Amino acid sequence: MVIDAHAHLNAPEVFYAYKARLQSSGGHHRGDPKIGDEALAASAARNVALLDEVGTTMQLISPRPYQLMPSARPERIAHWWIEANNDLIRRTVDLHPTRFAGMAALPVCAGRPVEEALAELDRIAAMPQFVGVLLNPDPSEGAGTTPPLGSEYWYPLFERLVSYDLPALVHSAGCFNERETYSEHFITEESIAILTVLRSNTLNDFPTLKLIVSHGGGSVPYQIGRWQAERLMPSLGGSADAERFETSLRKLYFDTVLHNPASLRLLLETVGADRCLFGTERPGSGSVADPVTGRQLDDIKPVIDEMPGLSESDKKLVLEGNARKVFTRLP
Amino acid sequence: MVIDAHAHLNAPEVFYAYKARLQSSGGHHRGDPKIGDEALAASAARNVALLDEVGTTMQLISPRPYQLMPSARPERIAHWWIEANNDLIRRTVDLHPTRFAGMAALPVCAGRPVEEALAELDRIAAMPQFVGVLLNPDPSEGAGTTPPLGSEYWYPLFERLVSYDLPALVHSAGCFNERETYSEHFITEESIAILTVLRSNTLNDFPTLKLIVSHGGGSVPYQIGRWQAERLMPSLGGSADAERFETSLRKLYFDTVLHNPASLRLLLETVGADRCLFGTERPGSGSVADPVTGRQLDDIKPVIDEMPGLSESDKKLVLEGNARKVFTRLP
Amino acid sequence: MVIDAHAHLNAPEVFYAYKARLQSSGGHHRGDPKIGDEALAASAARNVALLDEVGTTMQLISPRPYQLMPSARPERIAHWWIEANNDLIRRTVDLHPTRFAGMAALPVCAGRPVEEALAELDRIAAMPQFVGVLLNPDPSEGAGTTPPLGSEYWYPLFERLVSYDLPALVHSAGCFNERETYSEHFITEESIAILTVLRSNTLNDFPTLKLIVSHGGGSVPYQIGRWQAERLMPSLGGSADAERFETSLRKLYFDTVLHNPASLRLLLETVGADRCLFGTERPGSGSVADPVTGRQLDDIKPVIDEMPGLSESDKKLVLEGNARKVFTRLP
Amino acid sequence: MVIDAHAHLNAPEVFYAYKARLQSSGGHHRGDPKIGDEALAASAARNVALLDEVGTTMQLISPRPYQLMPSARPERIAHWWIEANNDLIRRTVDLHPTRFAGMAALPVCAGRPVEEALAELDRIAAMPQFVGVLLNPDPSEGAGTTPPLGSEYWYPLFERLVSYDLPALVHSAGCFNERETYSEHFITEESIAILTVLRSNTLNDFPTLKLIVSHGGGSVPYQIGRWQAERLMPSLGGSADAERFETSLRKLYFDTVLHNPASLRLLLETVGADRCLFGTERPGSGSVADPVTGRQLDDIKPVIDEMPGLSESDKKLVLEGNARKVFTRLP
Amino acid sequence: MVIDAHAHLNAPEVFYAYKARLQSSGGHHRGDPKIGDEALAASAARNVALLDEVGTTMQLISPRPYQLMPSARPERIAHWWIEANNDLIRRTVDLHPTRFAGMAALPVCAGRPVEEALAELDRIAAMPQFVGVLLNPDPSEGAGTTPPLGSEYWYPLFERLVSYDLPALVHSAGCFNERETYSEHFITEESIAILTVLRSNTLNDFPTLKLIVSHGGGSVPYQIGRWQAERLMPSLGGSADAERFETSLRKLYFDTVLHNPASLRLLLETVGADRCLFGTERPGSGSVADPVTGRQLDDIKPVIDEMPGLSESDKKLVLEGNARKVFTRLP
Amino acid sequence: MVIDAHAHLNAPEVFYAYKARLQSSGGHHRGDPKIGDEALAASAARNVALLDEVGTTMQLISPRPYQLMPSARPERIAHWWIEANNDLIRRTVDLHPTRFAGMAALPVCAGRPVEEALAELDRIAAMPQFVGVLLNPDPSEGAGTTPPLGSEYWYPLFERLVSYDLPALVHSAGCFNERETYSEHFITEESIAILTVLRSNTLNDFPTLKLIVSHGGGSVPYQIGRWQAERLMPSLGGSADAERFETSLRKLYFDTVLHNPASLRLLLETVGADRCLFGTERPGSGSVADPVTGRQLDDIKPVIDEMPGLSESDKKLVLEGNARKVFTRLP
Repeated sequence: MVIDAHAHLNAPEVFYAYKARLQSSGGHHRGDPKIGDEALAASAARNVALLDEVGTTMQLISPRPYQLMPSARPERIAHWWIEANNDLIRRTVDLHPTRFAGMAALPVCAGRPVEEALAELDRIAAMPQFVGVLLNPDPSEGAGTTPPLGSEYWYPLFERLVSYDLPALVHSAGCFNERETYSEHFITEESIAILTVLRSNTLNDFPTLKLIVSHGGGSVPYQIGRWQAERLMPSLGGSADAERFETSLRKLYFDTVLHNPASLRLLLETVGADRCLFGTERPGSGSVADPVTGRQLDDIKPVIDEMPGLSESDKKLVLEGNARKVFTRLP
Repeated sequence: MVIDAHAHLNAPEVFYAYKARLQSSGGHHRGDPKIGDEALAASAARNVALLDEVGTTMQLISPRPYQLMPSARPERIAHWWIEANNDLIRRTVDLHPTRFAGMAALPVCAGRPVEEALAELDRIAAMPQFVGVLLNPDPSEGAGTTPPLGSEYWYPLFERLVSYDLPALVHSAGCFNERETYSEHFITEESIAILTVLRSNTLNDFPTLKLIVSHGGGSVPYQIGRWQAERLMPSLGGSADAERFETSLRKLYFDTVLHNPASLRLLLETVGADRCLFGTERPGSGSVADPVTGRQLDDIKPVIDEMPGLSESDKKLVLEGNARKVFTRLP
Repeated sequence: MVIDAHAHLNAPEVFYAYKARLQSSGGHHRGDPKIGDEALAASAARNVALLDEVGTTMQLISPRPYQLMPSARPERIAHWWIEANNDLIRRTVDLHPTRFAGMAALPVCAGRPVEEALAELDRIAAMPQFVGVLLNPDPSEGAGTTPPLGSEYWYPLFERLVSYDLPALVHSAGCFNERETYSEHFITEESIAILTVLRSNTLNDFPTLKLIVSHGGGSVPYQIGRWQAERLMPSLGGSADAERFETSLRKLYFDTVLHNPASLRLLLETVGADRCLFGTERPGSGSVADPVTGRQLDDIKPVIDEMPGLSESDKKLVLEGNARKVFTRLP
Repeated sequence: MVIDAHAHLNAPEVFYAYKARLQSSGGHHRGDPKIGDEALAASAARNVALLDEVGTTMQLISPRPYQLMPSARPERIAHWWIEANNDLIRRTVDLHPTRFAGMAALPVCAGRPVEEALAELDRIAAMPQFVGVLLNPDPSEGAGTTPPLGSEYWYPLFERLVSYDLPALVHSAGCFNERETYSEHFITEESIAILTVLRSNTLNDFPTLKLIVSHGGGSVPYQIGRWQAERLMPSLGGSADAERFETSLRKLYFDTVLHNPASLRLLLETVGADRCLFGTERPGSGSVADPVTGRQLDDIKPVIDEMPGLSESDKKLVLEGNARKVFTRLP
Repeated sequence: MVIDAHAHLNAPEVFYAYKARLQSSGGHHRGDPKIGDEALAASAARNVALLDEVGTTMQLISPRPYQLMPSARPERIAHWWIEANNDLIRRTVDLHPTRFAGMAALPVCAGRPVEEALAELDRIAAMPQFVGVLLNPDPSEGAGTTPPLGSEYWYPLFERLVSYDLPALVHSAGCFNERETYSEHFITEESIAILTVLRSNTLNDFPTLKLIVSHGGGSVPYQIGRWQAERLMPSLGGSADAERFETSLRKLYFDTVLHNPASLRLLLETVGADRCLFGTERPGSGSVADPVTGRQLDDIKPVIDEMPGLSESDKKLVLEGNARKVFTRLP
Repeated sequence: MVIDAHAHLNAPEVFYAYKARLQSSGGHHRGDPKIGDEALAASAARNVALLDEVGTTMQLISPRPYQLMPSARPERIAHWWIEANNDLIRRTVDLHPTRFAGMAALPVCAGRPVEEALAELDRIAAMPQFVGVLLNPDPSEGAGTTPPLGSEYWYPLFERLVSYDLPALVHSAGCFNERETYSEHFITEESIAILTVLRSNTLNDFPTLKLIVSHGGGSVPYQIGRWQAERLMPSLGGSADAERFETSLRKLYFDTVLHNPASLRLLLETVGADRCLFGTERPGSGSVADPVTGRQLDDIKPVIDEMPGLSESDKKLVLEGNARKVFTRLP
């Protein structure tokens, strides 16, 4: 069995026309996405076919992150939009309950208290279709004004996640700062999320919090030497007695969305196979054929199957076992 | 023959999904709306049917104003979106050249020089499908930061419009100030447009500029007594010798999109039938049945036909003659 | 008997020199307007003469709105100034208690809690000279930052007005946005006030609140078809079962300050004679002779007397009866 | 003969009502101060009487500084107001050409190029009634955003002043920062003006520029030890070879508006009698009787007459000679 | 015995390299100044020698004000830096307990509640090495955004100072507004401190608060005539019955850091010898030889010794007695 | 021979006390760092010893980046500080011309035109001690307001660098956004620098521009699969015919400052040994002993010597050859 822990909803395209109406309405009209059952069934079926093509048994689907608009104003349109996304995921899971499980988005909005997202968290936690959440560490979408994930700003949300035992996939949304595309910003934000969490008391205060960092952990596994050194350096508050950085790092989880075998290997060797969850983002950032091999870049299972030095039991952990351990609400 | 001078494109709904992608992209990807010929033909046919229902011969279609996003950032996404709208209008006109003519949107963007819209104006002026433009007097979309239409900020655009003999339908876009819906803002902006233009030298400097003010001229025909008095008042710079306000007002044109017979009558009596162009916004703000009469509120032709005290020749002017005079590029 | 419900204090001119000192003082010195009894008596007598000229029995006088400076900083100078205005009105009413009644201004200041105006409301409510208040819906004076009148920001004030049974004349103050003169802004703000109040729960939450909208209701009676349609439109949250817009509109009151007979007729036909209060703003926006008729534009009583289709009893309502019903503290 | 080099216009009080109208108009109406000849003659006569009381032959009058509003927006109202002030001064001088001479205000406005004041400077320079100007070193009126008087921002104005040989009385206007009253701000700004000018190249670049610093030079004569030391201090760019601070200071002029004999004595001893001009600000900051002596505090001539250690020729310089040397356009 | 009440710590220069690290760290690393005992002893010994040179028995040392950075961001670096300064002062006093006493800086930071400084105040109050505090009236360091010393913003601090009987030396820190050097800003802020405190109720509410204003009181003793007049002026809220300004002024203390004998004389005559404390700022603003006399400008004791008209007992008060009375914790 | 291409000046610590003075001065005093020859010789000698310890022949030294303060205000203090750094590097190179070569910092300041750095570039280009420059891609130091390195903002600087054939080491400075330490920000900025340059026309317009990206290229070599996929993806403007991402990447150079052998191996395999320059940042981020191996983390030469699969000639390229090719001014 293969569980893909990082994938996004493929809604019928007119769903995004609803988003455009929301953005144009100034927040005065909520309207209705009006996605019919038939249209939804068709797009869900297309997605199932994509799973079958690469041998994925079950996919955990969250809203398309770059479309989430948590920094849109007035923030009620972000709430409406995120709720509509979660509703569509719920309906999609209901159509194929053995092939999809839901990861809900949360309306943590730029410049707003995190508490304003808890009502939606409570709502989706009551639905069996959801097994985890998507956690956007940068609601400001590139403006740099969000308290980082290691800040106490996030504590009310962490507390509630822990109480529901809902794991969170750390994944930023859009980016509007003219310096990065949203895709580049994903990597930046994952790095900041890891580093600020590990610099903080978060994981001491919430030892059962489960954070899965997308895209193989941003830059951190590659730059690990830098952070190992810092932990040891007295002038920066470190010491030879401090917890080693790699030990800290292994308190987080990572997915395999790297699209490059050598990088994936570095990840597995750095954080350990028991902290890695199979993920593809399929269809998404890697849904294109490598011109040399002809293989889709997001067809990651063969890469794991052929990974040198990875034991069979480790492969099983990556492809299924870790996900089962982390996502306790999985059927 | 009946010419409807105020109506908007009915694009296939997925066209607005393209808009959502543009807004989410941070301006890093232009992408492509990908509206197929078949989908466009279907939506155009639906619109033709709406014309037939009410006896409209030809409709002048512009982009859906509240969706235009001229205050979106970075402004290139507004340019891309407006160009995509104009392209879709061109294709729609080509499908039904005797039923539609194009009114192009212009990418005058919030906080940017008006000159940046001239390239697109030149582009559409070269296309026979377009007979006029939509002129948004508030690119800031409710932020109150746009120089009013009576300011010299707009002169480079007015000069170019005059050189092409392209009339402009004054119609604002979205509104994001939490005080007004976009629909309410339309009325505010039409009033400000009229009053600032008539307070300024604009119509002396551009005597051949043709401005058609949407929705019966906002509040101005109703509040005309106030402005007549001001023109006469020495303490406010007026005098008994000044041009009468009603004379100035008749240098502009107005459409009939009022959805209320008594208001339309006030308009016709105030500005004269020779300054009014038949317009319906159909389908749009009045596409709903009056619960009493059962008639669609945007079925305005019968209202004109039955208007007490309006001569047959005046009716013809309103329904066709004025439009022919103003839109010299009409076939 | 003729009651003019919309007029403003004619203070001795040096009263405004006091305002200039306040504005120049940086709020460090309150000073004293020093308007002597003699000077006040002279200016009040001039006003009485203006009433006699046109047959007005009693006039409800409020401070000159465009001079109110509720957005001035520090806000204590606005408080001082507004209190000085109310004091001068009180003294004027005392001079001619059968000819004048007071409408007090309230120091709702830009960017400040509405609660800061309640002390002055309590103060004037204790004075028999005042029968109502002037309610400025835009303390930001054109900056667009004020919560609209339909927002809960205003509830503490509405609650107190209702408890005193004090009606409020909705009338904005200055305008400093370079897009509108203060006079043009009056119309804009009246429209926004009506539309946001009717879009909100305000009148359900305060069913006994009495709001009189100045200048014939801004643009709303003229644009009523647009708002009727919106109420019915499902895509905008409306329905055929919703309360008709014209029904909602009749929960407000309107004055007759329109200076144009045809507009006044539209108002009376649209909202009903039982919702209209005679008002002139005399001396003020219409105090100039029509060059054709030679009649002062603010001599509105003859217009009502001659209004086609208006019954005698309706005329009485407009000229006196409605005011008596609304202003329960009138002698 | 006694020339009072620092005094302000005593306009009829209604002149400031005109200012209030300008401030309330949003800059849309210039209006007219409407100060009649009779009213002006009365206020001028009152001022002449005040001169006679204390034996002043001639007074140099400028507009009342704290009323100048150079930071008001839109800045055209500051221009209109300053021009109206200068016009009233011109008319006052014409009424009593042997008792008054004019010091014109200049419309250097907050955040605007100094060049925008040159047209008014040219206008008043062509009028024989004016012998100098009032130079406000802080058009931002306490916001702290003005380039200091030692900055090159002011060079275009200095150049023009020199070309006309018009001396400038350095005197700030209002203050709106909640930390200082305008009167306290005068002292602050005089100190900053002196210190930044003396730290800069201004007086090398404009050796014939004549600056008279109001109110005895702010804090500088009293704090002179501090600035003498700084000039000598190598670590702050000084040296024993640098021009002594007291030498630099004597390139400026100072008035005697100190209202305290010991302070005036310190001034005279510090900068020299040949750099001090008799000034009283009468009527103004010192127009109140000392409860002990019973003498008006702005009756400064006796203080000079009785100043220990001041020679007769020095007294003549202070009371007349220096003014004659500086104000070459004096009759 | 001679007590110098105004002097600053002479730390080893590398102490300021620690400050540079703090400023560069973004507040992520506190680090450690690492000032060794030997280095500190050397710099303290150099300072003792400077005392001996001019006959000073004991010096009250506070941190170097212009280096305090209370407006630095994030404000925790200002806290760390100020604590490090106080620690170094404590160690210096311990090295020479008969020659130095400590004046602690307080971390009142720009834009932050004054309460955030109380923990450090409590900390130093518990240390016998400290006899008073340095009170910076402008934590915004020239931005003009600090509530002035006469505002209730400061009350929590005043209350605590009074409870510890700790006197405060009023002395501003850096200045970053491009209009004043920090040294010039000292004078401005001292003047504002005096004037706003005396305009407020502060000294009525805290009659035992002891404020010593640096540098002879800014501009106030020199400009005293202006403030005396204002106190008497009815139009500014004054009266002949009001407390005389000079009486109010004598509720404050002043130091002698003026570097100019004539100014010092004016101070002594204006506020009285019993309100003046000997201070030198040595080494500091006056540590340079007068090229004429050859004497260091901050060698102020001879100036007092030779001051005409100052009695021997007054001299003793200035040199020692007043300090003993004010600083009750002095050994 | 071993050339270390990435290292920073070890100035005597009091050099940073000079920086603190500059920051406290408000830009009014330039002062002088006063670093004596003896002190400089001592710190240079300490650095030479560090080179000897690990077998480095020559080190290219630039200023300590996190201390550069290019966002400090007023910007002249950044200019003065950067010039002082370059001067100290020049003097250090002169002390050991065979052991050090200079990499100059450039005063590109936050919010300022890049042209303002060219005078200093010209100055150091004329000095043989400098062989390249340090290029900070984020003068805003974490505020996110700098145009990214792929923007045309940087063209004037690139043009000048190319004209002098001066290579640039891309390395950010401080970080003041509360989300990242400066060290974490280095990695973010390197990633943004690479990705925006490769998304732009920069390397087509300046084919001879030599950019060396610090710290092994941020996140990019690890995340390369993501960017390869994007280049191929038609919906993002890519295609199978586009230049492969890895080809583009090899137009840049990278240093080996990774402190982790597995990461260094990934780098070498991804970009090729011919694009990697030996660098250590020694003493700096890796100057601490690994508690397991006991080896300093910045002793990178043994890691390269022992790198599996790296040929001897490749090792020579990394350790010396590439540096010789890139830095044409090396002796």
